[in-house]
Amino acid sequence: MYLKETIIAPATGNQASAIAVLRISGDKAIEMTEKIFESRFNKKLKNQVSHTLHFGDIKDNATWVDEVLVAIFEEGKSFTGEETVEISCHGSLYIQNKIIDLFLKNGARLALPGEFTMRAFQNGRFDLTQAEAIADLIASDSKASHQVAMHQMRGGISTKLGELRKELIKLTALLELELDFSEDDVEFADRSQLTDLLKYILKEIQVLIESFAYGNTIKKGVPVAIIGKPNAGKSTLLNQLLNEERAIVSDIAGTTRDTIEETIQINGINFRFIDTAGIRETEDEIEKIGVQRAIEKAQSAKILLYLFNTLENTEDEIDMHLSALVREDLHVILVHNKIDLNAENQVIIDQKLEEKYHFPLLKISAKNGIFIEDLKRMMFDLIQRQDSDNQIIITNQRHLDALQKAHAALTEAQNAFIMQIPSDLIAQNLREGIKQIGNITGEIDVDRDILGTIFSEFCIGK
Amino acid sequence: MYLKETIIAPATGNQASAIAVLRISGDKAIEMTEKIFESRFNKKLKNQVSHTLHFGDIKDNATWVDEVLVAIFEEGKSFTGEETVEISCHGSLYIQNKIIDLFLKNGARLALPGEFTMRAFQNGRFDLTQAEAIADLIASDSKASHQVAMHQMRGGISTKLGELRKELIKLTALLELELDFSEDDVEFADRSQLTDLLKYILKEIQVLIESFAYGNTIKKGVPVAIIGKPNAGKSTLLNQLLNEERAIVSDIAGTTRDTIEETIQINGINFRFIDTAGIRETEDEIEKIGVQRAIEKAQSAKILLYLFNTLENTEDEIDMHLSALVREDLHVILVHNKIDLNAENQVIIDQKLEEKYHFPLLKISAKNGIFIEDLKRMMFDLIQRQDSDNQIIITNQRHLDALQKAHAALTEAQNAFIMQIPSDLIAQNLREGIKQIGNITGEIDVDRDILGTIFSEFCIGK
Repeated sequence: MYLKETIIAPATGNQASAIAVLRISGDKAIEMTEKIFESRFNKKLKNQVSHTLHFGDIKDNATWVDEVLVAIFEEGKSFTGEETVEISCHGSLYIQNKIIDLFLKNGARLALPGEFTMRAFQNGRFDLTQAEAIADLIASDSKASHQVAMHQMRGGISTKLGELRKELIKLTALLELELDFSEDDVEFADRSQLTDLLKYILKEIQVLIESFAYGNTIKKGVPVAIIGKPNAGKSTLLNQLLNEERAIVSDIAGTTRDTIEETIQINGINFRFIDTAGIRETEDEIEKIGVQRAIEKAQSAKILLYLFNTLENTEDEIDMHLSALVREDLHVILVHNKIDLNAENQVIIDQKLEEKYHFPLLKISAKNGIFIEDLKRMMFDLIQRQDSDNQIIITNQRHLDALQKAHAALTEAQNAFIMQIPSDLIAQNLREGIKQIGNITGEIDVDRDILGTIFSEFCIGK
Repeated sequence: MYLKETIIAPATGNQASAIAVLRISGDKAIEMTEKIFESRFNKKLKNQVSHTLHFGDIKDNATWVDEVLVAIFEEGKSFTGEETVEISCHGSLYIQNKIIDLFLKNGARLALPGEFTMRAFQNGRFDLTQAEAIADLIASDSKASHQVAMHQMRGGISTKLGELRKELIKLTALLELELDFSEDDVEFADRSQLTDLLKYILKEIQVLIESFAYGNTIKKGVPVAIIGKPNAGKSTLLNQLLNEERAIVSDIAGTTRDTIEETIQINGINFRFIDTAGIRETEDEIEKIGVQRAIEKAQSAKILLYLFNTLENTEDEIDMHLSALVREDLHVILVHNKIDLNAENQVIIDQKLEEKYHFPLLKISAKNGIFIEDLKRMMFDLIQRQDSDNQIIITNQRHLDALQKAHAALTEAQNAFIMQIPSDLIAQNLREGIKQIGNITGEIDVDRDILGTIFSEFCIGK
């Protein structure tokens, strides 16, 4: 993995900003910096203690490049575990690239995405799930996704998996001991105790596997579609939902408004509004076809808000739309809008719809902002897990895959127990389970390819 | 100016990145940080020396927010001159906003754009031209704009203006001494010496004023338009010019390619290609009108490349286009493309055009990349200043305005000298000149409004 090479990358994103931080890690980090840095107090960086900051100039021979602050970290005391320098320069892209260029000329290499974190992992600063959590943490954009990433970074998953793995190793060791004495037909391990333990481990793994659906929701947000005829009040509702959110976010000036454009947070979970054709009003579309098209486009939605009102929609029309919406993994909410208009047949139709489709129904007035909070609560309740928040949640596809493989192998081991198949076959399956769980935390040697895949998804400079 | 308030802002731009830096400045910077920061080594920040880094956790009461590095700077030793803390956190927008929020709750205020630099100025860390140079430095995107900003930041302009101002003050003092003794009709100052000095100062100011055209070019880049009939080879030429540039820039991975989309650097100066209708081929446009329209759209160009070839353009047509292009401040280059086709009348037409229009002419083959370097050199030569690079260059409109006002006042003083107008009128004009020059560096009290305008153009966090 070329651990000896000294690497450099901008750690603060490639854009012009007040300041930028360039990170340099490796044996020659300080030596290389010394070549182009001149302390204002005539200090030599190599004589300075770890975790100190030094003001001075970056020079390209006689040409002045920038005034900078240089932070130095001794080997063993830095994020990567290697000797590290962080240069805070003025955030012009020209200056950043110029300084990086000077390092490249002095023998440094541009860091690959995630390479700093990979080195930290390889130097034993943390395990693989913790490394992965760093990428999640950087990408986190809601309270829920932040908390899950934080918990994982602090070793929440590692601890849990470590326990399970330890139990499995103990179990396997006992079984393998039997194998050594197989001719004597001894049973060291109490079979019922072993099967109980295996059953327990399988159950725990299953809980983790099941947490993924929720974990993924937290990480990526809940896709929501608003469907309805033109003039059903879709934009009005969306604006109502968004406006309240914006009022909170805009307190902090300078935050990029774009990224939250059609996302609202309800109790810390992101709900993303899918841009269906139906959401944006198109005047010249035939109404019926419009809604049908929107339904097709909303295939990726997890929650669908069907907006109607009994003045403008006929019963047949609603019926037709709703029958197209029934899908096992889709939560539909019937949103009866414009209740302030007091349509005559309002109550009767609502009752009929609820009975026929079993979708929850809510009366609102988008225009007057009435019962919007109830709608939000209803959306949140559909997504929220029933069990406690303190449980460990899997958010990573790689972890899910490994857990499913572990579960499959251990289930085979369990069946073998029941069917009294020889211990060596059971042990083989147990060992597969141990390997899969070890893969997640990186406790066993992980393939270089797998490491490459994991860290290539990081951003540059981390 | 609420100097006592402690302010906070992200200094690394609002986007998700590996790390982000939040800057806090003011009397309570360390005290406020201490409230939400827990050192991993149980250190109290207030007991630590300046320019040290501390690893630990940011917490919102019991809730863990992030692992961070905290840098502390003592009052008098920081950028602003105030007590300062810089927090390096994970670069998620959620985390950045969360930490900022914690500071706001503890009584900090969000910094206005440029407020850190304004405080540095007000605390006497540097003068106004140097403060302005910081914004230019951050925005610098070419070698030339970087060097000019650097020179200004290091006090190049301040020194020059300081000298001129000192001379003016000396001159004025002598004249005012005369006023005190006016009844005695004494002349302390040697008039011819005074007029010589004033003449010298006026010449120096004029040089600075004249440097603005070049300075502005350096700062904003040179707008270039490529004009020609469809199929004249405009896109081919643009790609030839851009491709070479891209090859250099793309060495550094992760740089934002967008911003340099249609810009090339020649010897460190940016040349920006204006998006005229003519640059992008439009098949259905009548050719003649197409070029005319492009010429109209290219009004803001400083250099215009007129692409033609003697196979596809008639002499009359070229003549008509060129007669529309004559404009005093526009550099036209006649670019005779497709020379590989060896049109018969090539040499004769070229000669005629050169004689009639006195525009420089260059033969190229855009397709085969022949003489592209010559074209670049020709463009650069049109822009480059004839005098030495070491001279001081004005790039700021505010400085230009003040210099022009100073020049006008001092010219009046000069005229008054010549016309033997009483000394007090001369002194009044001299004092106006001194004031205008002092305004540039901020040596005299500058209006709060003016300060506000200057610093509001900074980015957040600087």
